[in-house]
Amino acid sequence: MFDFLVVGAGFAGSVIAERLASQRGATVLVIDKRNHVGGNAYDRYDEAGILIHQYGPHIFHTNSARIFEYLSQFTAWRSYEHRVLSHVDERLLPIPINRTTLNELYDLNLSTEEAVERFLKGRAEPIEHVRTAEDVVLSQVGRDLYEKFFRGYTLKQWGLPPSQLDKSVTARVPVRTNTDDRYFNDTHQMMPAGGYTRMFERMLRHKGIKVMLQTQLRDIQDVIPFRHMIYTGAIDEFFDYRYGKLPYRSLHFEHVTLPQEWRQPVAVVNYPQDEPYTRVTEYKHLTGQSNAQTSVTFEYPADSGDPYYPVPRPENQERYKAYERLANATPNVTFIGRLATYRYYNMDQVVGQALAAFKRITERSAAPEPRVGDYAVEQAQALRRA
Amino acid sequence: MFDFLVVGAGFAGSVIAERLASQRGATVLVIDKRNHVGGNAYDRYDEAGILIHQYGPHIFHTNSARIFEYLSQFTAWRSYEHRVLSHVDERLLPIPINRTTLNELYDLNLSTEEAVERFLKGRAEPIEHVRTAEDVVLSQVGRDLYEKFFRGYTLKQWGLPPSQLDKSVTARVPVRTNTDDRYFNDTHQMMPAGGYTRMFERMLRHKGIKVMLQTQLRDIQDVIPFRHMIYTGAIDEFFDYRYGKLPYRSLHFEHVTLPQEWRQPVAVVNYPQDEPYTRVTEYKHLTGQSNAQTSVTFEYPADSGDPYYPVPRPENQERYKAYERLANATPNVTFIGRLATYRYYNMDQVVGQALAAFKRITERSAAPEPRVGDYAVEQAQALRRA
Repeated sequence: MFDFLVVGAGFAGSVIAERLASQRGATVLVIDKRNHVGGNAYDRYDEAGILIHQYGPHIFHTNSARIFEYLSQFTAWRSYEHRVLSHVDERLLPIPINRTTLNELYDLNLSTEEAVERFLKGRAEPIEHVRTAEDVVLSQVGRDLYEKFFRGYTLKQWGLPPSQLDKSVTARVPVRTNTDDRYFNDTHQMMPAGGYTRMFERMLRHKGIKVMLQTQLRDIQDVIPFRHMIYTGAIDEFFDYRYGKLPYRSLHFEHVTLPQEWRQPVAVVNYPQDEPYTRVTEYKHLTGQSNAQTSVTFEYPADSGDPYYPVPRPENQERYKAYERLANATPNVTFIGRLATYRYYNMDQVVGQALAAFKRITERSAAPEPRVGDYAVEQAQALRRA
Repeated sequence: MFDFLVVGAGFAGSVIAERLASQRGATVLVIDKRNHVGGNAYDRYDEAGILIHQYGPHIFHTNSARIFEYLSQFTAWRSYEHRVLSHVDERLLPIPINRTTLNELYDLNLSTEEAVERFLKGRAEPIEHVRTAEDVVLSQVGRDLYEKFFRGYTLKQWGLPPSQLDKSVTARVPVRTNTDDRYFNDTHQMMPAGGYTRMFERMLRHKGIKVMLQTQLRDIQDVIPFRHMIYTGAIDEFFDYRYGKLPYRSLHFEHVTLPQEWRQPVAVVNYPQDEPYTRVTEYKHLTGQSNAQTSVTFEYPADSGDPYYPVPRPENQERYKAYERLANATPNVTFIGRLATYRYYNMDQVVGQALAAFKRITERSAAPEPRVGDYAVEQAQALRRA
């Protein structure tokens, strides 16, 4: 009898499994339908010996010292500040749009924040009720920048023009009036030094944790006994799609190794115009590896495939809410993670959600208190000795 | 209820799991106490992006077309003929000893097989009853070659001088009268093109197979129900060391990445003299990878650690025979693989043993016949369509 069955070995599942085993001495069976741990953050060395991200680039960034310190138990870090260029009219320009973007694109010489603000104000279109993603961008930067940087990207990304998408879709795209070209502003911007997979392996390397791969819930739920389930899979699948499928936008990846040292000056280049892909990631920028070849990934948005982005439409949120009510009425199962809560969370947010769930579970649950000889106690003793 | 529980995800366990799932439609749970599949053949990319063998060099060679074709379902191959040099008196000389070794070591010009035979005969010591490993070598090549190439190596490898070891220990060291410097003579000498781990992953990627890592038999045997067990772990451990431990010689590995393109001219260099290690493996020779750095492994024989070489002494064979009788009297458990049969098998031999065991099990067992909709049938249909 396992104390916990954790469905999914991504961030949500691995963090909560680690906490339950190391802090509560619980026995935890973690299953995942893939043949590896780490969820979409899984990275691996390809045949050229280059560490690539199988499911697209994952850049760790957070403002939470607590989350950063938690993960630091399982990995050293490599300082890395993410910068993205957008390939527009055959030029590579900083995105989010900043002062440099405008100066280079329009051959200007804006030198103060005020000058940039004035410039953008002169281009912004007055829109009374901002409803769509298009409204958001037009009202901030005007039509030309919208057409060049946003329209095509969003169309590829979502298969719909911004005019048909809720304003929340582009809420994550700020415009800068200074020359800061960092993609994220968070205090902590780092990559796990040995890669994400190594970090997950360390997280799960506890004698209270068993990891079972290539395994779906239905394969084992009637075979292996457990007390409580943590479910991090798709919530609609858990309830047999009773209220219909929750729509997701997917991605296809083309991983390529090129016979040259570098392809591009930064880790990620966006393609908002005519190319069929939305972005190209070159991994050596992220990892600091040196190699005479280089491995890159072309990213193609797609309707079908693994679930990546919940489609932000009100009817989908309502459908999710119906599933959430079922989840709340399901005893002995805790639903966490992106797929189980139908949210596009960053990695640090998922970790935070899992840590919070661990706290809730241990406050109310029948999980065994550490006994002498239990893992938690042993660990504490080992730490005290060290 | 699983049809089969397979303990150990090395060659023996993975091959039989693959056969049972793909040919008999069986459900198979494979467990391994390590956090990876592949047993000692496990390879991985290190932080320099170089594919290394975590547990020492594994070179695939076989004379069996059947075994080679079986594995070819799961990997492409890279042609590779293994050559080993021995570091003797500050020179690198071919081992097994051949005509080149003798000409270089003694500054000779032997040009025919007969000349080599005459030379060796003139050095060989007449020994009436060949009993020890020392006797074997002395009677073949005489004292000087024995001292230079064998005595120190064996002493390091076994912690005992050849005079105290059974003759079977060096039975695997031939001497050549020609200039052939290949380490193996087998028809098939190849490396899996994407590495061993990739090959194992493909072998185990079947929907009838679940893989559970970091898991020992005792963790799950009372929790997860199964019909029949295939045990590939240590046989003495299975029976709680009832007749005592079966002794093994172990190895410690030091994996190092050097800031230079190459360290040595061949994949493996033996050190039979004063160095504390027995051999150094440079992996790029095996894999064909190109990289400005190079990763090598220093190999140190050791008394304790993972079990590698059964200690070839008559009393150990007798102890094993006692365990074997227990095994034969244990219903519903099949014992295969190196550790369960206390044998130093090459990889192809383990594969052959597992295939034979599969045949025996399916001939006598209650394993379900393929039904329509079963994996075997689906696979056959898919193959017919392809």
